[in-house]
Amino acid sequence: MLLYDSAVSGNCYKVRLLLSMQGIPFERREVDVVERSDRMELLGELNPALRVPTLVLDDGEPLAESNAILCYLAEGTELLPAERLARARVLQWLFFEQYSHEPYIAVVRFWVMFSATPPTATEIEARRAGGYGALDAMERHLSGRTFLVGERFTIADIALYAYTHVAHEGGFEMSGYGAIERWLRRVDGQPGHIPITA
Amino acid sequence: MLLYDSAVSGNCYKVRLLLSMQGIPFERREVDVVERSDRMELLGELNPALRVPTLVLDDGEPLAESNAILCYLAEGTELLPAERLARARVLQWLFFEQYSHEPYIAVVRFWVMFSATPPTATEIEARRAGGYGALDAMERHLSGRTFLVGERFTIADIALYAYTHVAHEGGFEMSGYGAIERWLRRVDGQPGHIPITA
Repeated sequence: MLLYDSAVSGNCYKVRLLLSMQGIPFERREVDVVERSDRMELLGELNPALRVPTLVLDDGEPLAESNAILCYLAEGTELLPAERLARARVLQWLFFEQYSHEPYIAVVRFWVMFSATPPTATEIEARRAGGYGALDAMERHLSGRTFLVGERFTIADIALYAYTHVAHEGGFEMSGYGAIERWLRRVDGQPGHIPITA
Repeated sequence: MLLYDSAVSGNCYKVRLLLSMQGIPFERREVDVVERSDRMELLGELNPALRVPTLVLDDGEPLAESNAILCYLAEGTELLPAERLARARVLQWLFFEQYSHEPYIAVVRFWVMFSATPPTATEIEARRAGGYGALDAMERHLSGRTFLVGERFTIADIALYAYTHVAHEGGFEMSGYGAIERWLRRVDGQPGHIPITA
């Protein structure tokens, strides 16, 4: 498999982390996430959204959107339950991640750490408030639970872990989130875990 | 089933449209999408994101996130393919919808049509540009195709139809999107179709 990748992207890290846990070898092609002028040439035939990660399967078929790639790779394994409601709840958290979490926590981290033209401090602070909303929702849910769905480690945990475990890089103060911190340590301990820098 | 619903929300309309196509009866409970102070009381036990739609199944189990609800309801039917890659491609479009389409097209429509405190015209125009990016991606993909995935009507079409067919209400000029317009008419013609106002 060939992964159009970015070393700094949590969305790409989700895919690398799952592939590592599954022991699946893959090639990486680094794509610039700041200078994007070559995106149509690079990804136009592969991904309508022109984003990374984009995965090209061994038979040449492309697949895009980090959380759809997780579902594809986890299909038929314990990381994506077969039971209908549990499966839908995994998807619930994957959609939560892309709608209510990533646009705040990942975007603020990108602005703070990587952007050449970040917005004003006021705009960053306003966006950060949305991120705390997502963290509050996770903290409420994880209090008294070991993992997000069905007390088992699933791709919902991989998807939410990717940007939550580096939220501090975007200036998020994590000391009040005890249930999240304990959950992060449980994900750290999963066999095949690799750091985002790997 | 009980649907925590909003008559003006395209995300809720997705669920009503699919339930209508499937002939499944359900109750609706209208939730205010402008005045949100009662959300924790209303949805705190049901949906970590405190959003509509939230569906409560007949056995009392809650399920949230519009596109996760679509997957749950369509499981085992032709609207969600069983084949692994086709299923992942349906999910790819569902995640595209929530990340690259809804935050622009739905949000601009909400600001223009329903918000008591919309942002400035400059901010609306900047957000609208992101919506045209999503429409351009759909137009490229739908040119020469009848539906989004596998030349069959699936929940990917339901999810993207919901806000695309009312994009003009947010001031989007649709006359340049011929492939999208022809696809919208194909979705209009599906058995059990109901309008967003139903």
